[in-house]
Amino acid sequence: MTSITTTRSDLYSEVQQFYARQMQALDSRKLEAYADTFTEDAEFGHTPGRVPARTRAGIIRDLYAAHERFADDPQQRRHLFTMMDLDPQEDGSIRSTVYALVIATRPGGNPELVRSCVVHDVLVREDGGLRNRSRMVEHDGLD
Amino acid sequence: MTSITTTRSDLYSEVQQFYARQMQALDSRKLEAYADTFTEDAEFGHTPGRVPARTRAGIIRDLYAAHERFADDPQQRRHLFTMMDLDPQEDGSIRSTVYALVIATRPGGNPELVRSCVVHDVLVREDGGLRNRSRMVEHDGLD
Amino acid sequence: MTSITTTRSDLYSEVQQFYARQMQALDSRKLEAYADTFTEDAEFGHTPGRVPARTRAGIIRDLYAAHERFADDPQQRRHLFTMMDLDPQEDGSIRSTVYALVIATRPGGNPELVRSCVVHDVLVREDGGLRNRSRMVEHDGLD
Repeated sequence: MTSITTTRSDLYSEVQQFYARQMQALDSRKLEAYADTFTEDAEFGHTPGRVPARTRAGIIRDLYAAHERFADDPQQRRHLFTMMDLDPQEDGSIRSTVYALVIATRPGGNPELVRSCVVHDVLVREDGGLRNRSRMVEHDGLD
Repeated sequence: MTSITTTRSDLYSEVQQFYARQMQALDSRKLEAYADTFTEDAEFGHTPGRVPARTRAGIIRDLYAAHERFADDPQQRRHLFTMMDLDPQEDGSIRSTVYALVIATRPGGNPELVRSCVVHDVLVREDGGLRNRSRMVEHDGLD
Repeated sequence: MTSITTTRSDLYSEVQQFYARQMQALDSRKLEAYADTFTEDAEFGHTPGRVPARTRAGIIRDLYAAHERFADDPQQRRHLFTMMDLDPQEDGSIRSTVYALVIATRPGGNPELVRSCVVHDVLVREDGGLRNRSRMVEHDGLD
């Protein structure tokens, strides 16, 4: 009676906060912390045409492999999620469709817009917080 | 007594959600769905120096005309609204001043920043949701 | 009993609204209005390697000095804050870590991405609203 259940407004802010911390972890190359924002059985397809990574362990392996290309090309990447459209499901999961920009700044250079994407997430609640059960990324401009 | 009225926080998230769905519709070229986010008597001036479109039917005609230029120049456009400043009015309408970036990605190309704007909206509540009663767009960099 | 205390959700929207109005003031060159969003004893370090400005009067002087470079190079700048991670402290202050993009549009030109930053704020409540007690800006791509 006295408890206020989570409203749509609460949820909206909660997901924004979740994304902020999640992507700040990725951009700081805290790959384990980033992978920990996925469920144990999650699926993550970040590159069209590439088989999605499965399970958290698989996601970590995939992240390390994907970051190898930066070994010889240092750059600070930033992932900006905006225009978040949430669609809560009856099973308690949340479908989120959000725009993502990837910006890269090389030492001494100006920031460059390197990718415009649409991210399709399924979020679930675990241990009181949110996690990605799946993430599928569409890239703009693919031929 | 038991009802919780819409707070400013609820409103802020609600408008963000409204913009996300509205602009995802536009960027997917769902022009009727986009026009349906305006009131029947709305006014929409998206290009300085051009007479604003009036009424939803007029807005649809204008949208189709404006999108003709993309017939020979395929590109995925994204409209990103950020830095939203809301000013609720006594009559129940909401003035919203928000930054908009337009990003375009051509097939095989990198995303390009094509426009930086300030959007001046008047939003009203209709049928339980929000709609634009007017939208006026200022473009940065006009001579 | 009947009052609803500020929830995390309320706070998240409140800070977004605060940043929108704060940065719209800066981008409109309303420097006094911008400085007024800092506490009287605030510290503001916007450029790495430069001594942070202290006190509101010092911040205003610094803003005017920093804006002199635009006297011969007119441009509309926009500061976009996204991916806001809030960390409320026990003393009532709020640590905020947020991405900032600076976009500049010169007359007749396209918008350019001129800076990607991470902003580290400490916000406090004064006179019922929020103010920056400190702001420290990290720039991406520094050698």
